[in-house]
Amino acid sequence: MFPKFLRSTLPSMKESPGVVDLLGVLAYAELSAYARMTEDAATLAPSLADRAALSELAVTEYAHFRLLRDRLAELGADPDAAMTPFVGALDAWHAQTRPTDWLQALVKTYVGDGIALDFYREAARLLDPSIAKLVDEVLVDEGRSQFAVERVRAAIEAHPAEAGRLALWARRLVGEALSQGQQVASARPELALLLMESQQEGHTDISRLFAKLTEAHNKRMAAMGI
Amino acid sequence: MFPKFLRSTLPSMKESPGVVDLLGVLAYAELSAYARMTEDAATLAPSLADRAALSELAVTEYAHFRLLRDRLAELGADPDAAMTPFVGALDAWHAQTRPTDWLQALVKTYVGDGIALDFYREAARLLDPSIAKLVDEVLVDEGRSQFAVERVRAAIEAHPAEAGRLALWARRLVGEALSQGQQVASARPELALLLMESQQEGHTDISRLFAKLTEAHNKRMAAMGI
Repeated sequence: MFPKFLRSTLPSMKESPGVVDLLGVLAYAELSAYARMTEDAATLAPSLADRAALSELAVTEYAHFRLLRDRLAELGADPDAAMTPFVGALDAWHAQTRPTDWLQALVKTYVGDGIALDFYREAARLLDPSIAKLVDEVLVDEGRSQFAVERVRAAIEAHPAEAGRLALWARRLVGEALSQGQQVASARPELALLLMESQQEGHTDISRLFAKLTEAHNKRMAAMGI
Repeated sequence: MFPKFLRSTLPSMKESPGVVDLLGVLAYAELSAYARMTEDAATLAPSLADRAALSELAVTEYAHFRLLRDRLAELGADPDAAMTPFVGALDAWHAQTRPTDWLQALVKTYVGDGIALDFYREAARLLDPSIAKLVDEVLVDEGRSQFAVERVRAAIEAHPAEAGRLALWARRLVGEALSQGQQVASARPELALLLMESQQEGHTDISRLFAKLTEAHNKRMAAMGI
């Protein structure tokens, strides 16, 4: 911990208060994803091997949470205080997108992970080098949710009627995420400003960032064959 | 995988079929403890820091599950098949001992971990050296649930009336464990035989092992001040 007047002189401390918000929202996103994926694995997996495979991803999310929390502490921020403003929106997203079967759980894992990775990439573009390193560590695990893609593709090939149902589900996942994101953006203007700056094109319209996220989402949908 | 006739010549393969049972029951105990502790952390922790502290223990249980599963695979056993006979008893234990508040969750973590560690120690006494190494790796984490002891002691010091309630809770936890254990022992005689052999005193009464577990449990209760 550093006295407040010293913090702004720390070489790794970015001036914008939006940085702590960004690390805080990502930290709680990882902590809550870990808990939800663990529960989905325990209650929806068709076999113990599948349960272990999804639990493995959940534990990886927890490891990312640990990196983010430690980074917040190194920056002199209180991790709990940094996460608290985002608990409501992320818990609401999970409550509104509770999967009812294994395929929905896999699609949610891949979609949720994907949106988080998009945010990490934004973060890497604009934050200091030590945070870029953290982002690199997280992105190393990017391929891990590939197993979800393969399972969903195989299920759709075997039962083509599943495609429509899962497409609707994915649309709901991203729709609820954008809706929660809009509320977060208006409640945390500094975070919104930080993410808009990262677009580096002079646009200050949050809908531009959302359009970008939606485009990335559509690519992921195509990868799953839905 | 090795042909069946070769398995008994593997240097690390213990003859008794109870060994696969013992690794199987421990593996599912770890996998289910991980899921339940994660849920308790998400739903009962009074702060995000407490939630992270219990989640940290949960993730450690998952790491133990991984060691056990990999060891089963190395022995030529199918991990899922080895765990399956114990899913019912362990799920029933968790269903009958669902904590309703944070202190109950902490007591359950410490009691459950303690019983598991007693079984690991029995396993270390009788299994081949490579399994003894696995047990050593697990026992390294023994001190981790100490945080639960400290929180419970502090809570009882602040509110002495909690002691009686938590003592009843702990008795229920161990009572349900012994009751599920008795059913497992009669359904899996080879496992029961293996554990009784480990007493190395010629007694073939499962109640002797249970008495030993109860004694260890009482010591843990004293450590928590209940």
